[in-house]
Amino acid sequence: MTSLATQIAERIHALRFEDIDPAALDWTASAFVDTVACTLAGIQEDGPQILLRVPGIATSPGPALILGTNRRTSVLDAALVNGVASHALDYDDVVGSMGGHPSVMLIPALLPLGEMLGSTGQDLVTAYVAGFETVCRIGRGVHHHHYEKGWHPTATLGIFGTVAGAARLLHLSIEHTAIALGMAASFAAGLKANFGTMTKPLHVGHGIRDGLFAALMAKEGFTASPGAFEHKQGFLDVFNGPGTYDTGRILDGWYSPIECGGAGDPGLKPYPCCGSTHPSIGRAIDLATRHDLTADRIASVTVMPHHRRLPHTDNPNPRTPLAAKFSMQYCVARALTDRSVKLSDFEGDAPYDPTVRALMQRLDAHPHPDMPEDWGTEVIVVTTDGQRFASRLDDYPSRGPAGDPMTHAELWTKFVDCGERSLPRAGLQVAFDSLMGIAALTNVRDLTALLRAPTGA
Amino acid sequence: MTSLATQIAERIHALRFEDIDPAALDWTASAFVDTVACTLAGIQEDGPQILLRVPGIATSPGPALILGTNRRTSVLDAALVNGVASHALDYDDVVGSMGGHPSVMLIPALLPLGEMLGSTGQDLVTAYVAGFETVCRIGRGVHHHHYEKGWHPTATLGIFGTVAGAARLLHLSIEHTAIALGMAASFAAGLKANFGTMTKPLHVGHGIRDGLFAALMAKEGFTASPGAFEHKQGFLDVFNGPGTYDTGRILDGWYSPIECGGAGDPGLKPYPCCGSTHPSIGRAIDLATRHDLTADRIASVTVMPHHRRLPHTDNPNPRTPLAAKFSMQYCVARALTDRSVKLSDFEGDAPYDPTVRALMQRLDAHPHPDMPEDWGTEVIVVTTDGQRFASRLDDYPSRGPAGDPMTHAELWTKFVDCGERSLPRAGLQVAFDSLMGIAALTNVRDLTALLRAPTGA
Repeated sequence: MTSLATQIAERIHALRFEDIDPAALDWTASAFVDTVACTLAGIQEDGPQILLRVPGIATSPGPALILGTNRRTSVLDAALVNGVASHALDYDDVVGSMGGHPSVMLIPALLPLGEMLGSTGQDLVTAYVAGFETVCRIGRGVHHHHYEKGWHPTATLGIFGTVAGAARLLHLSIEHTAIALGMAASFAAGLKANFGTMTKPLHVGHGIRDGLFAALMAKEGFTASPGAFEHKQGFLDVFNGPGTYDTGRILDGWYSPIECGGAGDPGLKPYPCCGSTHPSIGRAIDLATRHDLTADRIASVTVMPHHRRLPHTDNPNPRTPLAAKFSMQYCVARALTDRSVKLSDFEGDAPYDPTVRALMQRLDAHPHPDMPEDWGTEVIVVTTDGQRFASRLDDYPSRGPAGDPMTHAELWTKFVDCGERSLPRAGLQVAFDSLMGIAALTNVRDLTALLRAPTGA
Repeated sequence: MTSLATQIAERIHALRFEDIDPAALDWTASAFVDTVACTLAGIQEDGPQILLRVPGIATSPGPALILGTNRRTSVLDAALVNGVASHALDYDDVVGSMGGHPSVMLIPALLPLGEMLGSTGQDLVTAYVAGFETVCRIGRGVHHHHYEKGWHPTATLGIFGTVAGAARLLHLSIEHTAIALGMAASFAAGLKANFGTMTKPLHVGHGIRDGLFAALMAKEGFTASPGAFEHKQGFLDVFNGPGTYDTGRILDGWYSPIECGGAGDPGLKPYPCCGSTHPSIGRAIDLATRHDLTADRIASVTVMPHHRRLPHTDNPNPRTPLAAKFSMQYCVARALTDRSVKLSDFEGDAPYDPTVRALMQRLDAHPHPDMPEDWGTEVIVVTTDGQRFASRLDDYPSRGPAGDPMTHAELWTKFVDCGERSLPRAGLQVAFDSLMGIAALTNVRDLTALLRAPTGA
């Protein structure tokens, strides 16, 4: 019997650049822009800055840039730091079939590895699409049980995407790829209990460092079991449990259609906070705009997302900016008050804004009693003069958890807003264009040269 | 409500060196000798040597020795490499209440950290005893469910011991220790499916690197949730599952008596293979010696360990020396053939020895139908002339999974056998004495100076 990891490895290596359809190429370009944007902003956050102070972190000499700085180190440590930075703001993309954040588990790892190898843009795009497909396919086989149990799928499934992408860039054999996947099954980690703390973005950096490590170790001949998924004491039975997964759904249907081309419901985030709050934020902005609501006119608010969206976001009293990103109450109250949710709403004292806090006191969040769709929600506002307004979302929002795809202009605005936190404004247009044209890149090093802070910055 | 991690942190910090009883001090000295012995031999194995070839591994400058070499690097990477080396031979100590290998999760991490800090022997011993207690107490609360499910407790529980020991050496506050424990809950990883491959010892190095990382990160102010154990999407419910653990058993009874002083049933390994094979090896040697058996006189063998000992050791055809360490069939056939099981039995072609392989064909291993004791076993031999000999072990073997404690002379023999694989024979006596007198050490650096290979070696 061919092991599951070997069959996954065969599929990882089956993709050719020529097979990638235009929708997937479009998504990939947007994802590179968006993820690099989040990383350039995120590197300035407390979490990555603390990480860089720890003895032995990013002190190894090496070829790989920590994005938005002028520091180079080993591929492994650059991936660690870039990964933590990329997810520090919880502003990066999501995909439904994975139940998590796909691109931060790929791009902050593939760029350093590509720098070491001098990979082309086509290599990078192929690695990205194969990695994205891997996490979504495994996600289809293990969800929703895996998600609801409390694992953080971004890390626990995402690591297999990192391995897949790295295996492509490193030109690993199918056998070595299967061994790296088996090894990664022993590295998979990350609990939702740490959401709202710096450890959530650390799951990303830690996971992609481990995914690259597994691929590099397998290349050198380190051994692991390719049977580590289906073994009775392996990934599927231990992380999920017997009867809670479907290996057919893991193995069937790869690239037809491609997950990142739309099949997996990928979306860019317009709001820098937990994706599970986005549908309700979208409804809140809709209500406030349509009915010209202001906070002082609102007597009560009821927020009813799908039950799966609440266990990690039900926080009526967030005490830090990071915790506020995982507070449904704060995010929806902020959206009703400002008709927007921005980076600065999660900085300094913003989560203690008296108007927003007062509205949170009048806001009740509980699971919707009748909502079949995973990302559906309903927000109901009653005004001080007794009017009742409701806004409901039933379908999965197309290309974005807030319900609308992001336009090219919105993506550029997000890139500038984020990018200028680390890089001079003047260089951002050429960096943006280079990322949008990622598939045409001759050498990854040409790209990262544009993402390096000036000496002394 | 005080979080579980905070209550554990309070207990970690409650221990004073003066409170450590003589039995625990004796054990600790033996454990330092034994673990360093295993590390000095293990560093020459393929696994650690491959690890050292991976780009970015142990290339960071730093104060910490890779034992048995003349290479220094960061504390984190020294712990990684020392950890993999320490467990590479599966020759290191075990403890019943943890269901795994306690000292490799402590000593290969505490020595590098102690080198950076210039810690004393008393610091080191106190950190070791507190770390040992931590893993055993958590083990008492989550086993046997945790063990049988397929986690590798050495790594998944051991990481909390690493955090505990590091927290003591670093003089972390209780608050920071609880944060580091919560962070480590998001790093805990390792599946039994990878037993019999190089990834099993990698669980150790990987886990202690992560445990130190969590402690160093918490010290710098990185955040995690101290509620990450009891949270509904936290360590206990996600790794074990509701109703399969007992927090009372985690919190009650610390240091009375001390786990490493005997309460947890710690034992040194006389055989360089999986601990679960040891009771049966002991019975096999007993039978062969008592009845003067030789392989050619044996018609059939029946091996019946406790059912918990077999899922990861039932391998009638091990294809590598590492897999042979996890083959009940090979280990017991080797013991009957040679009346011993030695390092060289897991090197080169030894696992394909024709006499042993032929005897394996006449050997049947299955779970005992009537064995209440976790480490009990029964071995039955029928000779070619129709005689039937049986040897049964019912009680947990005192201070050693083979059934007998190791004497001082046996420990010295093991230390020399292992140590001279990396260090000149002439220096071993003083290293042994320094380790046996670990509590009297003025500075850890004086010890590691004795464990460094001569320049150019």
